[in-house]
Amino acid sequence: MKPALLAVDWGTSTLRGALLAADGAVIEERAFARGILTVPADGFADVFDECFGDWRAATPGLLCLMVGMVGSRQGWQEAAYCACPAGFADIAEQLSWIAPGLGSSAGRIAIVPGLCCEREGLIDATTLATLPDVMRGEETQVFGALQSLQLQATQDAVMVLPGTHSKWVQVTGGRITSFTTFMTGECYALLRQNSILARTLSADESPFIESAFVQGVQIALRGSSLLQTAFSVRTLALFDRLSAEALESYLSGLVIGEELRAQSLSAHQRVVLIANAALTQRYQLALAQCGITCESPGAQVTWAGLSAIAQTLHL
Amino acid sequence: MKPALLAVDWGTSTLRGALLAADGAVIEERAFARGILTVPADGFADVFDECFGDWRAATPGLLCLMVGMVGSRQGWQEAAYCACPAGFADIAEQLSWIAPGLGSSAGRIAIVPGLCCEREGLIDATTLATLPDVMRGEETQVFGALQSLQLQATQDAVMVLPGTHSKWVQVTGGRITSFTTFMTGECYALLRQNSILARTLSADESPFIESAFVQGVQIALRGSSLLQTAFSVRTLALFDRLSAEALESYLSGLVIGEELRAQSLSAHQRVVLIANAALTQRYQLALAQCGITCESPGAQVTWAGLSAIAQTLHL
Repeated sequence: MKPALLAVDWGTSTLRGALLAADGAVIEERAFARGILTVPADGFADVFDECFGDWRAATPGLLCLMVGMVGSRQGWQEAAYCACPAGFADIAEQLSWIAPGLGSSAGRIAIVPGLCCEREGLIDATTLATLPDVMRGEETQVFGALQSLQLQATQDAVMVLPGTHSKWVQVTGGRITSFTTFMTGECYALLRQNSILARTLSADESPFIESAFVQGVQIALRGSSLLQTAFSVRTLALFDRLSAEALESYLSGLVIGEELRAQSLSAHQRVVLIANAALTQRYQLALAQCGITCESPGAQVTWAGLSAIAQTLHL
Repeated sequence: MKPALLAVDWGTSTLRGALLAADGAVIEERAFARGILTVPADGFADVFDECFGDWRAATPGLLCLMVGMVGSRQGWQEAAYCACPAGFADIAEQLSWIAPGLGSSAGRIAIVPGLCCEREGLIDATTLATLPDVMRGEETQVFGALQSLQLQATQDAVMVLPGTHSKWVQVTGGRITSFTTFMTGECYALLRQNSILARTLSADESPFIESAFVQGVQIALRGSSLLQTAFSVRTLALFDRLSAEALESYLSGLVIGEELRAQSLSAHQRVVLIANAALTQRYQLALAQCGITCESPGAQVTWAGLSAIAQTLHL
């Protein structure tokens, strides 16, 4: 297959790249522990050439599209956020092109813009203001997933992208109308590793125990706050009500359940889950506690999204 | 004044002691960075003698009452939890006496029991179970505060004890009927120091900015979850909507506001706040956003509580 696109996902801790054919088929993939935090401010072109120079030399003029934190203020070049509501055409038309001198000898390199949105937020006695939210990379996953699932422009959906900073994305008529970030994965890791609960939990990772996870989800869905429910990891262990190896799955359920409690979900909603296998299992279980079945577009939605943008440029 | 009691508050990170007269007046106070985490399992008697041996030698037979984590499994001697509802007489009658050989040559030494309670908790398809909660030390502060405020046995009150692990205590007819722990102070410190927000916040502590704190409280009270609202510290900074020095106070408001949102508070409730000066200021501000004014019994409620227990032993 002839390479038509170098697709790159350059995040905080990882740099991934794929060589794609014109129809989006993956020819070859690579991953490096060269997230933007490891790259000096003037070192992005060099790292890029080290990792993908051979691919680019083999296909002169190869288009390269990048997503993720590479487009942030700490990245290669800041790509301004696109304001919501935003559709596929908006991000495809607002690519941030790297000036040739800054990049490399051959080919065109662009960064896909992230999205920003405003949600109703600050209220005091006299003013109603809004809270901003941002994403970089997830927008491309969402549009890739819409393509993979062949979701019609008339259908609404909630897209869930769990992780260190989970995103809940509202899609209406093929456009992202708003989204919300939850620090779920990060707060889980802090509680698991840095809080008093770390003394109760075993230092090694425990096997996943579904029943304990579901208990955690149910506790979280009943209300209150993670500030309160998290302490039950300690007290349930103190009174031998949960086995030591079940505590980790229980805590995971508490944190993911808290994320779900903050949503206004109805069983009639179309919920699309974009996650790796381990998180897909947990979120499917958790969403089932809310009476919701979700669909998954499978892996590589980032490559699908970047391939779709490339096709608009080739037209 | 003649010493009648050696009152000791031996917590996780600090050891405090006071020499009290028969009427509860403080004759002298001491504090040491000798929390139970610094003491080997068989070293409690030695540390105790090092810190307070001279006071005990000067008053042979001096009664000593201790509260806090010194009565936990990791402390000097485990003092069983008293089950709620529990009144002052319950904890005064269930002291855990240190056997003379384990203590020191002169005097009587006892540990005040902590409290445990059960709250409605685990639900699955077929069972309704409860979640346990525990406290050690706060029970003595609560009974000390009830004395200081001369709250009648017929009056109900909510006692709030903010801190690393905040306690909300329901008092009915002079007895503690139930309570709830919130990991508020600990989660604030984790977000402040160990999360991605630490990169946005300045490394040094900022001055307290009341307006930013109140904004945080208001955002938190509107709903959702700290998992979501915490991310706004980052986005408000990203779009220059809050000054760098206001972010810390704003985050503090978000976390304390989350604790308040989880309560069912009404403006008619009697709320008693037991905290140091800095936390008293913040919780008074936050409670005012819920339309609640609270009263404070002042400092040294632990000494007042221990003095009251000592008086029952002298009768």
